[in-house]
Amino acid sequence: MYLNGRFLPRSEARLDVEDRGALFADGVYEVLRAYGSRLYLADEHLARLKRSLAALHIQTTAEVDRLIEITAELLDRDARPEAQVYWQVTRGAAPRARGFPENPRPTVLVLSWPIEPLAAHEQHLAGVRAILQPDRRWGRCWIKSLMLLDNVLAAQAAAEAGADEAIYHRDGIVTEGSATNVLIAHRGRLITRPADEAILAGITRARVLELAVEAGLPVEQRPFDTGELAGADEVMLTGTSTNVAAVTHLDNRPIADGHPGPMARQLHAALIADILRYCGLA
Amino acid sequence: MYLNGRFLPRSEARLDVEDRGALFADGVYEVLRAYGSRLYLADEHLARLKRSLAALHIQTTAEVDRLIEITAELLDRDARPEAQVYWQVTRGAAPRARGFPENPRPTVLVLSWPIEPLAAHEQHLAGVRAILQPDRRWGRCWIKSLMLLDNVLAAQAAAEAGADEAIYHRDGIVTEGSATNVLIAHRGRLITRPADEAILAGITRARVLELAVEAGLPVEQRPFDTGELAGADEVMLTGTSTNVAAVTHLDNRPIADGHPGPMARQLHAALIADILRYCGLA
Repeated sequence: MYLNGRFLPRSEARLDVEDRGALFADGVYEVLRAYGSRLYLADEHLARLKRSLAALHIQTTAEVDRLIEITAELLDRDARPEAQVYWQVTRGAAPRARGFPENPRPTVLVLSWPIEPLAAHEQHLAGVRAILQPDRRWGRCWIKSLMLLDNVLAAQAAAEAGADEAIYHRDGIVTEGSATNVLIAHRGRLITRPADEAILAGITRARVLELAVEAGLPVEQRPFDTGELAGADEVMLTGTSTNVAAVTHLDNRPIADGHPGPMARQLHAALIADILRYCGLA
Repeated sequence: MYLNGRFLPRSEARLDVEDRGALFADGVYEVLRAYGSRLYLADEHLARLKRSLAALHIQTTAEVDRLIEITAELLDRDARPEAQVYWQVTRGAAPRARGFPENPRPTVLVLSWPIEPLAAHEQHLAGVRAILQPDRRWGRCWIKSLMLLDNVLAAQAAAEAGADEAIYHRDGIVTEGSATNVLIAHRGRLITRPADEAILAGITRARVLELAVEAGLPVEQRPFDTGELAGADEVMLTGTSTNVAAVTHLDNRPIADGHPGPMARQLHAALIADILRYCGLA
């Protein structure tokens, strides 16, 4: 892995106990995937990381600007062409006090984990089960920050219910999943909440919407409620680790006939083709 | 300091980069003060820490049960009879995944910083300036968790406005300060929001309310709005580091005549006397 300017063995990767990420969730992150040694949509992830940093008034350093190159070198050193990659930038370590420290040095971390080659398992459209959960997160979910404890509790609630994901709603209006964005298909239209301040502007979400438009599908960005979700022809999740997944059951009740539908299949296939093309594997 | 069973020099205090506290804000904390080598209201802080842990389904270990003894030993080793103490317990280190890991070992951290003896500066009632901030925190603020990034931003907003604290409101109803509880005095009555799920049940808040009742002051626990706050005879903050402070200005406008009032003086004196008595210094 990589930490603050150095490539290190995983066992040596240690943070100061007063790193503000560890004390205050005062940092941001991105999760990316590399296929065939190529980071999919890396520029988009780096741009979002910088937007998150700017929102928190954490300075973008030269090291942050070099994250794509640093990651390429890390994956090369680890001989890991297929990888899940984690970028984290915190405000840095400083004696514990809530206001910003003077002249902090941001802590820059890159981790990677091996994943299977895309061809092997991810070309399959996953059918998943979801539960509904009240969205109790903070009011700035558009910032991809370390404020994830509610997501942890929601993901655990899903796991304990035998489900794969929790879909959040605020007062009945769907926001997003605990680690995904949520899209529905109804009467041939693809519907998803606008990327407002209440949700993360997903990189995969945005790419899937582009691919839908390219395919001539009618796309509507508007809020929808849990009733419309449960009654949709199809419910889909998007995310970097998820690609496109089809929700077949919500709170143990089937969505339509309880099987992945045609729009999920079409969008999943389009996204996989896009990844293969982008990463030079097609 | 102390970390996971060992007393260590501060420079060796390092967390694994995949400690869940650092990745997900998946942990809880307490801040205490020691005066004359005695931790004020230590049992109450430990009980609240355990309530926070239980709420997150983090197991209370024997090490957590021993935190008061561990802290006493740490302060003794450091020859630090007057100290600010920080306890932090996270769900532990595990490969990054949102749901709970199996059999995690909680990470237990104790830090301390020197403070001045109580006699020297804290017997003085502080007059402080506050600003109002919208409360954008998550929905489980009664848990004293590491989900503090909004508190960081609010504290920084206060500092940039030349103020000492930010007082949160949700849709105009006052919740609490970014690091304190808020109480008002009006026509001889002491008024504070009930310790519901939207705020932390402050240890100092509870003790001050007890002292107020003992002194025969009428106490009302009910919500109040920012109008009632701005128009109160007195506004007070309570907290472990704050003791009792008098808010003299809110958003640059004076509270009443802009000077600490009689109820703040009375409650501050009662709290200091209680600390001195509790810690065997009276």
